Amino acid sequence: MRHDEAQGAAQTLADFVASTTWADVAGQSHEAKRSILNFFATALGSAHDLTVTAALRALSPYSGAATSAIIGRTERLDAQSAAFINAISANLLDFDDTHLDTIIHPAAPVAAPVLALAQARGFPGHAVLTAFILGVEIECRVGNAVSPGHYARGWHITSTCGVFGAAVACGKLLALSADQISNAIGIAASQSAGIVENLPSAAKNVSVGNAARNGLFAAVLAAEGYSASPRAIEGRLGWARAMGDEPDLVRLTGGLGETWEIAKNTYKPYPAGIVFHAVIDACFRLRAKLDQRIGNIETITVQGSALLLARGDRTVRNERDARVSIHHCVACALLLGAAGVTEFSDAAVSRPDLMSLRQKVRAELDASLPDGAARVTIRLTTGEMLRETVTDAKGSLADPLSDGDIEAKLRDCARLGKSDWDVDRVIDRVWHLDSLTDVTSLMKAGVQH
Amino acid sequence: MRHDEAQGAAQTLADFVASTTWADVAGQSHEAKRSILNFFATALGSAHDLTVTAALRALSPYSGAATSAIIGRTERLDAQSAAFINAISANLLDFDDTHLDTIIHPAAPVAAPVLALAQARGFPGHAVLTAFILGVEIECRVGNAVSPGHYARGWHITSTCGVFGAAVACGKLLALSADQISNAIGIAASQSAGIVENLPSAAKNVSVGNAARNGLFAAVLAAEGYSASPRAIEGRLGWARAMGDEPDLVRLTGGLGETWEIAKNTYKPYPAGIVFHAVIDACFRLRAKLDQRIGNIETITVQGSALLLARGDRTVRNERDARVSIHHCVACALLLGAAGVTEFSDAAVSRPDLMSLRQKVRAELDASLPDGAARVTIRLTTGEMLRETVTDAKGSLADPLSDGDIEAKLRDCARLGKSDWDVDRVIDRVWHLDSLTDVTSLMKAGVQH
Repeated sequence: MRHDEAQGAAQTLADFVASTTWADVAGQSHEAKRSILNFFATALGSAHDLTVTAALRALSPYSGAATSAIIGRTERLDAQSAAFINAISANLLDFDDTHLDTIIHPAAPVAAPVLALAQARGFPGHAVLTAFILGVEIECRVGNAVSPGHYARGWHITSTCGVFGAAVACGKLLALSADQISNAIGIAASQSAGIVENLPSAAKNVSVGNAARNGLFAAVLAAEGYSASPRAIEGRLGWARAMGDEPDLVRLTGGLGETWEIAKNTYKPYPAGIVFHAVIDACFRLRAKLDQRIGNIETITVQGSALLLARGDRTVRNERDARVSIHHCVACALLLGAAGVTEFSDAAVSRPDLMSLRQKVRAELDASLPDGAARVTIRLTTGEMLRETVTDAKGSLADPLSDGDIEAKLRDCARLGKSDWDVDRVIDRVWHLDSLTDVTSLMKAGVQH
Repeated sequence: MRHDEAQGAAQTLADFVASTTWADVAGQSHEAKRSILNFFATALGSAHDLTVTAALRALSPYSGAATSAIIGRTERLDAQSAAFINAISANLLDFDDTHLDTIIHPAAPVAAPVLALAQARGFPGHAVLTAFILGVEIECRVGNAVSPGHYARGWHITSTCGVFGAAVACGKLLALSADQISNAIGIAASQSAGIVENLPSAAKNVSVGNAARNGLFAAVLAAEGYSASPRAIEGRLGWARAMGDEPDLVRLTGGLGETWEIAKNTYKPYPAGIVFHAVIDACFRLRAKLDQRIGNIETITVQGSALLLARGDRTVRNERDARVSIHHCVACALLLGAAGVTEFSDAAVSRPDLMSLRQKVRAELDASLPDGAARVTIRLTTGEMLRETVTDAKGSLADPLSDGDIEAKLRDCARLGKSDWDVDRVIDRVWHLDSLTDVTSLMKAGVQH
C-alpha cells in the first residue's frame, strides 16, 4: 500500500489497518505470541509490586464495571483502568520486550488495552492477535519516523509512541472504519506524553500506563464520532514537529504490509536496560576467566557508545537506579554470576560486597562501538588485564531467546511475583491464542479447570 | 518565597502551595469568583453540545461511583470523568477566560477537577477557592516559563500547562504535603500533552479534558506515594526542554506570593479566539460609520500581528473554523452587529450573505501592531476608505467585563445551552463561594430550594 501525498499520514496508516485481516497477519502470529508471552512474564513478575498496588488503590474509585483482569491478581477493574495497571506491571522492571531500532518496549502499551478490551467485550483470540500485531506496527513506525532524535531529546518513546499503538489496536479490535481509526490516531497525538527525566521514578509508570489507557480512550472516542486533524502527526503544528522532529514519512508509511515491525521484537534475559545486556554478558565471560580471583580486582573499565554512558553512568540508590546502572550490572554479573530480578532488588542494591565492587567500575566512551555493544576490561592487583567485548548480547536479534527461554522466564517471574495465576494455563492459552473463542480462559486468576 | 537553586523547581512551587492558606489568597478571591462564574457561563452554554454528549457516552462505562455533577445536565459521573467533561464544555466554544501573557485559558482545566473533587469529598467553598487560585498560579507560571516559544511550536498551552494547574489544585484540596505536591507536579509533567494542529477538531477537547482528568489523577497518585523527578520541569531531559524550550526559572518561581496570575485573567465578550476581539470591536465601530452602505463594500483589509495571521487566516467550513477566522469575525460583526454564540453557529457559517462578505476580507501583516490589536480598513465601491484601529479590545485588562457583564454572559450562555440548571442559584452560590460549607448546593441540576 502506497502513501497518497494528498491525504494525511494517519489516513494512510488507518486504510492499511482497516483493510488488514487475520489471514494477512497470521504469518506474524508466532512472534506476536512470543511477545505476549513475554508480556505476561513481566506483568506476572510485578503483579504485587507496591507501585502496582498503589495504582490499584488510586484507580479503584475511578473504575466502572469490573470487566477486566489485573494480571497476576484476583482484582478486576474496567478495561481502561485494567489497561493502565497491566501496562505498568508489564513495564515496571524494565524487563519487557524491545524494538531495537527505537528502544520502544512495544507490548506493554498495546497488549494491555487489547486484552482488557477483548475480555470486556468477549472478542476472540485471533482478533486479539490481529489487533496486537497492527498496534505494534503503527507504534513502531511512528517511533521510526522520529528516531533517534525523539528519545535523545527527552521523550520516553514507549509512552509517547505507545499511545498510537494502543489507539490503533483498540480501534481494530472494535472494528472501526478507516476514517475512525485515522481519527483515533489523531486523538492519540493529542494524548502523547512522557519524559525521560522521570525514568527513575514512578512517574515513568504513569506515562506508560496512560499510553495504554488513553489509547483505548482514543478508540472509544473515535467510535463516538470524535475527529482529529488528518495531519496530526506530520502537520506544521502537529505531533512530530511540536516534539522537535521533522518526521520521516517514508519510515512512517513506506512498505506497509510488506515489512513487519513485530518481526524485529526482542526479549530480555536480564531485567536491566537493554543497552546494559552486552555489559552483563561480557562480565559473565570474565567471571569464568577470573575463577577465584574476584578479590584481586583493582579496576573495571566499561567502554561503550554515548547511549550506554548517557543511560547508565549513575549513582545507585535503589532498584530503579540499579536496572539502569553500568556499575550495578557489572557488580552482580561478576560477583553473583546472575542478573535476574533478585540481583536487581533493593536488597541486592544495599549488599556491601556489591556496593564495594560497584565503586571499582568506571565508564568510558568508545565511539567506535555500536549501540548495544560493550567492552569490559578488568585490571587485577597483579597488573594482569582481562578483557571481553560483546557485540550481540543474549536476547538480541542475532542471539534471540528461544520459545523455551521465554517460557522459563515467565515461570521465574511468576514465582518471584507471587502471582495468583496458573502459569501452565497462561503459557498454554497464549500458544493457542489464535484458536481461543474468547480470552476469558486466559485472563483470570486461579488454577486451570 | 525564594527559589533554592539546590532543590528542583517543583519543590519550590510545592513548598509555596503547601504553606499558602485561605487568608493568604482571600484578596484574590473576587477575581477567582469572576473566573469561576465565567467558567460556569461557558460550561452551561455547551452542556448539551454533541461533543459533550459523545464524551459522556464514551466515559460512562469507565466511571466509578457517580459523585460529581456534569454541569448543566442531570447526569453524574466519578470526579475524574466529570472533570474531563466539564473542562471540555467550559472550553468548547473558545469562550472561556484568557491569561493574555500565555494565551492559556486558565479556568477549564483547573476549576473542573477542583469542583468535581470537592463535590465528591464534601470540601468547603474557601478550600475550593484556595485550590483554584493556587492551581491557576502554577498553571500560568509554567506557561510563562516557556512562552512564547511553546505555543508557537505547536503545543496547545491550555492543555499542556493546564495539567500542572489541575495537579496542584487537586493536591492542595486533598491537603497533600509539600513533597507530595512536588511529586504531583512531576507526574503532571509526564502527562502533559495536546497539539495545536488538532485545534479545529474534537481532538483538541480531548487534551483539554485530559489536563483536568490527568491532573486530578496526578494528585491521587501522589497521595498514594507515587514519586517523580524533582527536576521534571527544568531537567536536561525534562518537560520544558523535551518540548523545545529553555525554561525561564525566574518566571517560574520568582516572586511567589507577591504577584498573582489570577489578577491577570480576562473574560471574553465574544466566543472567538481572543486575538480576533479587536477585529470585532473595530468592525462594530465601522458598522456605525457605514450606516446603510454595507452593500457598497468593495474590500475589507484586516491588519495585525503575525499571531493574528497565523491563527486566523483560514477557510471557514464549520463553527470551529468560524471561531478562529478573521473573515468570519469581520462578516458577522459588520453585517449582523453581533458576535455571540448564535453568530458563530454552523447555521451562521453557511448563510449566503456572510459567505459573500467573508470573501471580501483579506488579512495583511502589520508587524508594528501589538498582539491583540487590529486595524480594519473598508474600501467602498465609491473609492471612500473607512478605517478603525483597536488596541485594547473589550474584555482586555484595559477594558474588562464588569461583574454584571459576566452575569449577563452566564445567563445568555445558559439560555442558548438549554441547561437544566438554575442560573440564579449558580450566580448566587459562586459569589458566596467562600462561605459555602460544601459545594453541593452549587453543583446540582434543578431549581433552588
